[in-house]
Amino acid sequence: MAALPAPLQRVVERLSRLPGIGEKTASRLAFNLLNRPREQVIALAESLLEMKERVGLCAECFGLSDHPRCHVCEDPAREREVICVVEGPADLMAIERARSFNGVYHVLHGSLSPVHGVGPEQLRTNNLVRRIESGEVDEIIVATNPTVEGEATAVYLSRLIKSLRNEVKVTRIATGIPVGSDIEYADEVTMMKAMEGRREL
Amino acid sequence: MAALPAPLQRVVERLSRLPGIGEKTASRLAFNLLNRPREQVIALAESLLEMKERVGLCAECFGLSDHPRCHVCEDPAREREVICVVEGPADLMAIERARSFNGVYHVLHGSLSPVHGVGPEQLRTNNLVRRIESGEVDEIIVATNPTVEGEATAVYLSRLIKSLRNEVKVTRIATGIPVGSDIEYADEVTMMKAMEGRREL
Repeated sequence: MAALPAPLQRVVERLSRLPGIGEKTASRLAFNLLNRPREQVIALAESLLEMKERVGLCAECFGLSDHPRCHVCEDPAREREVICVVEGPADLMAIERARSFNGVYHVLHGSLSPVHGVGPEQLRTNNLVRRIESGEVDEIIVATNPTVEGEATAVYLSRLIKSLRNEVKVTRIATGIPVGSDIEYADEVTMMKAMEGRREL
Repeated sequence: MAALPAPLQRVVERLSRLPGIGEKTASRLAFNLLNRPREQVIALAESLLEMKERVGLCAECFGLSDHPRCHVCEDPAREREVICVVEGPADLMAIERARSFNGVYHVLHGSLSPVHGVGPEQLRTNNLVRRIESGEVDEIIVATNPTVEGEATAVYLSRLIKSLRNEVKVTRIATGIPVGSDIEYADEVTMMKAMEGRREL
């Protein structure tokens, strides 16, 4: 009883493996796709295959790219002396969306987390080290998340960079109250960080 | 600026056309898929294509099926004298999950909704009429949703069925307080329906 047609059931199973998609949502999506024109479903399936086929990592910064080097690293207008280090490709996109950074990136693909077995060897730091040693870099902005793992990664990177070339400036993005939010509802740690990071007006 | 690699962007666009999936969720899903083993993404894409290729409507009840007739209509143990009429395939699945119905189904693929331009002609009633006229049917259970459209559809069906064969019993599923919920929080209309539909203990 209660069996969906097998091909539909397979779609539900595969969709429900995605993050945040439970079985009910997966069913709803599958029913919706079943009611759509054939071409739309084919286009979705083909876009998935094409993405998996063509999107890899930029050889320079390890960001996502469908070319050997990503569009940021290829852009002659970007300042190659300033490297912003992020945990993942989604962080890079968030910084790009803010349109306030004109340097280049380095994507670590993770953060230090001994409990999850992620040590310095698991982070992609090799090309970063090479770029620092080449002597072209003036500043490294560490934009890892303001979490336990992100902060540990920031401390580790700072020491690593200083040990390679002490004259490179290492900076950390500011933590504090998000714009548009209410101080009344800020958590204690964020509030403390906002006070610590206060600047003269 | 802020551009995702084109193949990734296409996946995000296609995913964000699905119901309940905004651009942020679509990005999260796309990044997740990108990090999965190739085989899993291929399997998802292929299951979508296979579903669209193979799942159609049962010739008898218009439920979903990957065969000419669905497994309910094919099952000799089901009582063909009782037909449960539902709005959509998902409703059929919900009733099957409850395992309390041993008859067969008829799926309307919609409900009467003049504001959305859905009149009696848009509902799939033709095969239902044929089944009633054949004289094999004793009871029609109308399991359309307890909404304005579903109730209007129920009234329409009841009249249609009685006009075809007056001796066919037409019943409506009960509306009332859901099991496990709190009477305190029931809305007025549901509460009223629950009182109206009270039964002797």
